[in-house]
Amino acid sequence: MTTTLAARPVHVPMDQFAVRDGELIVGGMTLTRLAAQVGRTPFYAYDRGLLRARVAELRAALPHEVKLHFAMKANPMPAVVGLMAGLVDGIDVASAGELKVALDAGADPAEVSFAGPGKRDPELVQAVAAGVLVNVESARELPVLAAAARALGVPARLALRVNPDFELKGSGMKMGGGPKQFGVDTEYVPQLLRDIAADSGHLRFEGFHLFSGSQNLRAESICEAQRQSYELALRLAGEAKLPVRFLNLGGGFGIPYFPGDARLDLAPIGANLAALVERARREMPQVHLVVELGRYLVGEAGVYVTRIVDRKVSRGQVFLVADGGLHHHLAASGNFGQVVRKNYPVAIGNRVGIGAPTEPSSIVGPLCTPLDILADRMDLPVAEVGDLAVVFQSGAYGASASPHGFLGHPLCAEVLV
Amino acid sequence: MTTTLAARPVHVPMDQFAVRDGELIVGGMTLTRLAAQVGRTPFYAYDRGLLRARVAELRAALPHEVKLHFAMKANPMPAVVGLMAGLVDGIDVASAGELKVALDAGADPAEVSFAGPGKRDPELVQAVAAGVLVNVESARELPVLAAAARALGVPARLALRVNPDFELKGSGMKMGGGPKQFGVDTEYVPQLLRDIAADSGHLRFEGFHLFSGSQNLRAESICEAQRQSYELALRLAGEAKLPVRFLNLGGGFGIPYFPGDARLDLAPIGANLAALVERARREMPQVHLVVELGRYLVGEAGVYVTRIVDRKVSRGQVFLVADGGLHHHLAASGNFGQVVRKNYPVAIGNRVGIGAPTEPSSIVGPLCTPLDILADRMDLPVAEVGDLAVVFQSGAYGASASPHGFLGHPLCAEVLV
Repeated sequence: MTTTLAARPVHVPMDQFAVRDGELIVGGMTLTRLAAQVGRTPFYAYDRGLLRARVAELRAALPHEVKLHFAMKANPMPAVVGLMAGLVDGIDVASAGELKVALDAGADPAEVSFAGPGKRDPELVQAVAAGVLVNVESARELPVLAAAARALGVPARLALRVNPDFELKGSGMKMGGGPKQFGVDTEYVPQLLRDIAADSGHLRFEGFHLFSGSQNLRAESICEAQRQSYELALRLAGEAKLPVRFLNLGGGFGIPYFPGDARLDLAPIGANLAALVERARREMPQVHLVVELGRYLVGEAGVYVTRIVDRKVSRGQVFLVADGGLHHHLAASGNFGQVVRKNYPVAIGNRVGIGAPTEPSSIVGPLCTPLDILADRMDLPVAEVGDLAVVFQSGAYGASASPHGFLGHPLCAEVLV
Repeated sequence: MTTTLAARPVHVPMDQFAVRDGELIVGGMTLTRLAAQVGRTPFYAYDRGLLRARVAELRAALPHEVKLHFAMKANPMPAVVGLMAGLVDGIDVASAGELKVALDAGADPAEVSFAGPGKRDPELVQAVAAGVLVNVESARELPVLAAAARALGVPARLALRVNPDFELKGSGMKMGGGPKQFGVDTEYVPQLLRDIAADSGHLRFEGFHLFSGSQNLRAESICEAQRQSYELALRLAGEAKLPVRFLNLGGGFGIPYFPGDARLDLAPIGANLAALVERARREMPQVHLVVELGRYLVGEAGVYVTRIVDRKVSRGQVFLVADGGLHHHLAASGNFGQVVRKNYPVAIGNRVGIGAPTEPSSIVGPLCTPLDILADRMDLPVAEVGDLAVVFQSGAYGASASPHGFLGHPLCAEVLV
């Protein structure tokens, strides 16, 4: 039965995926066929067409002078990184492990950058050897980079990651402003620039990296952060004796996860960046503006698919017990940065949009913990054992951000289709 | 400097670990030497002596008639399971993957039980073949078990996991009462007992499993739940035409994690169980009472050790950046079932109790996310790069419950010492 939910906020339609004969279409095939191709459940599937379409949409909305980078921490599946490396202008890595995947995937080292607050010395050496750009987050990194450059006979390419004195408003996660482990506080930048200039034979300064936050759905606050980041970089560029060639304005573009969330409007962001490109042409003519996106590039292109293995009714409440859950998709269970658990958009992927009767249902995983829940009392088509439950918006921070070993269940598959 | 913290709740002393010359002693050696033996950081270390001492403490406090089971989901490291299998009376597994580890570790199949709300058919077949006890959570499992018994020519040993009509008060996680995915609602039990009796050639009924919650620090509410579980089992046993040989009263024994938490008092639990043993002798003479503990057995015996790779001061706040964090220890980062993040007990393991000057410090991990925090502004000895940060109470739901692949950092080691 459908109850009266008119006043409640709802999920935006997951209309990036087509539907045919009641089946969700992923990678051009019905979900049932895709599950048969994968050969087992649970699995993550990422849709090539949607990844390409998202990049094209960004290319159309943002000025062509702005470089588009993929922060691969959002989805480090090698096949995804390989596809993205061919679509975007650069890859951002967060560890030497990610660096290896990016290089194996064919990313151009000239367009790879490496950020992270706790880079170990061997990782810094690897980055210099690979010839990638290091986003320096601490004065500690400079002597390590210089020594590596000296030993290897190649310059250490670096940008300074700056912890600004402002925050991205309305951001899901704040990563700049106030005391932070990320980047170098604005007030220390001039000294670091002098230190770099003093060893310019080994340390090649290329620019600044600013990152104020992530998962923001308000275009105006992203624009505001970009303007403030630009102003800060312009001010700091005045301190640098060397030209600023690279200015990473961060990302922060969010995607809708929860009831009431709307999709981000790219138009004002495009206009804002066009104005900054125009200013940069006059004020910092050598600079390339970079926007670094992770979740926004890949999040909406992915689904997590898990098969219903039991249907239980306990004291009037329907529980669909699935073969996957928290151990593969921690974020959808509500245990990854959320204060209050909310439902991700979820469907029964082989019973979509066919006017079937619905009922309030909870989808839970196989783990012996009440934390293992994928859908809490959602109105879903009446489902049976063998049906395929789908968690949308699962292309980012899904498989790689989950505790796969928890309770010893089989690993999930990942496919790019 | 030490500020005045008198009014604030504090962590209980982590005095299960000795200290020598300012060094924490783990597995009989200084932390510095242990780190050298492991050869890398980060790592988890579990102390054999503390595991043995905890079992001995429980044996002394609880009546000897009560069987002690280890729920290995709390710590599935094979070496730990092997040690525990020799110390306790049985092992509880939550998947076929855990079953394999338990059997490899030498656990007696007669004393292994298998619970979980989403057991897949092949897992049920494996359990029958292994001869372990299956805690049935759904009517769906019965025909699968009967078919496996028929095909293999061995009986399917089973207990009914019952979802009671009461909750464990003051429990950290509620797993019984109301609508739940766990177990069979009390009101369905009589029908299931009839179904089992009708196929007693293949289905061998052994008893009941009740599990009301976990991580409870109040002895009286554990006692109350045990009494209610016993009463419920006694009532249900009247419905069973077959004798009840096995009555798993669950666990729920908590350990102190956060400021203000006190250690559980075992004495009233021991007295309560002694009274239940006495009653059972008259009312259910064939029954073995079982207490199933995970976290309580192993949690306090383990530490997570990570090396400080950077010391940053950002706008007056000290950040110790470590080579480990959320990806290895999700719970300590506050992202595993906690609504409000609180600090685990933490120390600088090579600067313990030597009256060194302290300062408010945050310990963060190497990940590019503000979620990656192990200690938020705690008063700690002034630490340097190379020091070893220790997170206590890490023997349960640590390594196995964490997203190791997140951001591509090296895996952590685990050692039993």
